[in-house]
Amino acid sequence: MSVNKAKAIVLLSGGLDSATVLAYASQQFSCHTLSFDYAQRSLSEINAASKLAEHYACSYQLIHIDEGVMSGSALTDKNIAVPESETEAGDEGIPVTYVPARNTLFLSHALAVAEVHGALDIFIGVNAVDYSGYPDCRPAFIHAFESMANLATKAGVEGRKLRIHTPLIDKTKAQIIQMGVELGVDYGQTVSCYQANTRGEACGHCDSCLLRKKGFEVLHIADPTRYF
Amino acid sequence: MSVNKAKAIVLLSGGLDSATVLAYASQQFSCHTLSFDYAQRSLSEINAASKLAEHYACSYQLIHIDEGVMSGSALTDKNIAVPESETEAGDEGIPVTYVPARNTLFLSHALAVAEVHGALDIFIGVNAVDYSGYPDCRPAFIHAFESMANLATKAGVEGRKLRIHTPLIDKTKAQIIQMGVELGVDYGQTVSCYQANTRGEACGHCDSCLLRKKGFEVLHIADPTRYF
Repeated sequence: MSVNKAKAIVLLSGGLDSATVLAYASQQFSCHTLSFDYAQRSLSEINAASKLAEHYACSYQLIHIDEGVMSGSALTDKNIAVPESETEAGDEGIPVTYVPARNTLFLSHALAVAEVHGALDIFIGVNAVDYSGYPDCRPAFIHAFESMANLATKAGVEGRKLRIHTPLIDKTKAQIIQMGVELGVDYGQTVSCYQANTRGEACGHCDSCLLRKKGFEVLHIADPTRYF
Repeated sequence: MSVNKAKAIVLLSGGLDSATVLAYASQQFSCHTLSFDYAQRSLSEINAASKLAEHYACSYQLIHIDEGVMSGSALTDKNIAVPESETEAGDEGIPVTYVPARNTLFLSHALAVAEVHGALDIFIGVNAVDYSGYPDCRPAFIHAFESMANLATKAGVEGRKLRIHTPLIDKTKAQIIQMGVELGVDYGQTVSCYQANTRGEACGHCDSCLLRKKGFEVLHIADPTRYF
């Protein structure tokens, strides 16, 4: 890490989107990466995240969020099935994979860590595909969080503006992959599957796998994902 | 708990303020209480909180927040001294007892738990004394958090409005005590001291003790606090 770069906090799940964000943010910032362990099904994402942080020579922090805080989602509750196609959305268009207040909790942790590290910049890989279904991926939510963050913190009071960066927000999956390929991201090392196995191999059938597959297809780029 | 009451989430530290909020909220709501263990010095507050929850027949959830997420405060870092008088504020009026993004993190957890429990009402005991020094106790912060919360969640999208209740926000310490006495709160069971001992006895000298003492003095009410 260059000592001349300002510090930024990057939320890193180990998936395709956040890997692209990390590659992007690393160009300009010295990045401190955060992953979350919140009883989600796919721990192989966390392994992928720590390897990506190492690859980009970034510090890495795994934060545990208590079980029961974000339950009631297909991603955190074994009694709710992970949908096998994009058409199986939940009521009112919110997917059953929605996790209660997930991005609010992730960004709140990032905000605290940013204050501890003296960072003013936080990166999160939300994008157009996400915000069509998840309320906490919408631009309006991100703007509201940023406003709140600047009222909540010492930095904000002292006039140093905290920024929530969403470099992927208007991009489709194909555009994200295009951006990552240009940045040299090795997508074979990322895990996006909702039910990846312990080796980080993907199912190829869940919402997340289908979206990702389609992205490579549209670009006529060979899909480097390891499927089981 | 009455089955006819709507459910609310109440942040309960075990101190004077949150005990008053719980007594107040319990009149109208079936309360689920949340305490946080974030490597703060005073674990005796947590013991007081669980006893208060029991007294008010509320469910109780202790949430752990990883060490290192909110470090750099006199309350979370043993290398920073707890101030011995109200005059020793930090730079720019923010006390050294300010904990990075604390209320943002607390309210974010409460928001997730509210979604899991189907609750729309969250209570927090911030007040006028706090918001003169802590940025995340100001009415503007609370309003910004509430706006963000309604954009972040399934409830908000579906038009069920989430509310952050701050029944103490305009009150001085004396007014809070007056309110609590009328509600029958036993303040001898609450712990406000920044460095209380394991039996929940208070130092009598820290910011928090001095403020609390003064409240009882102003009202000419005997101070039931147990000092060591």
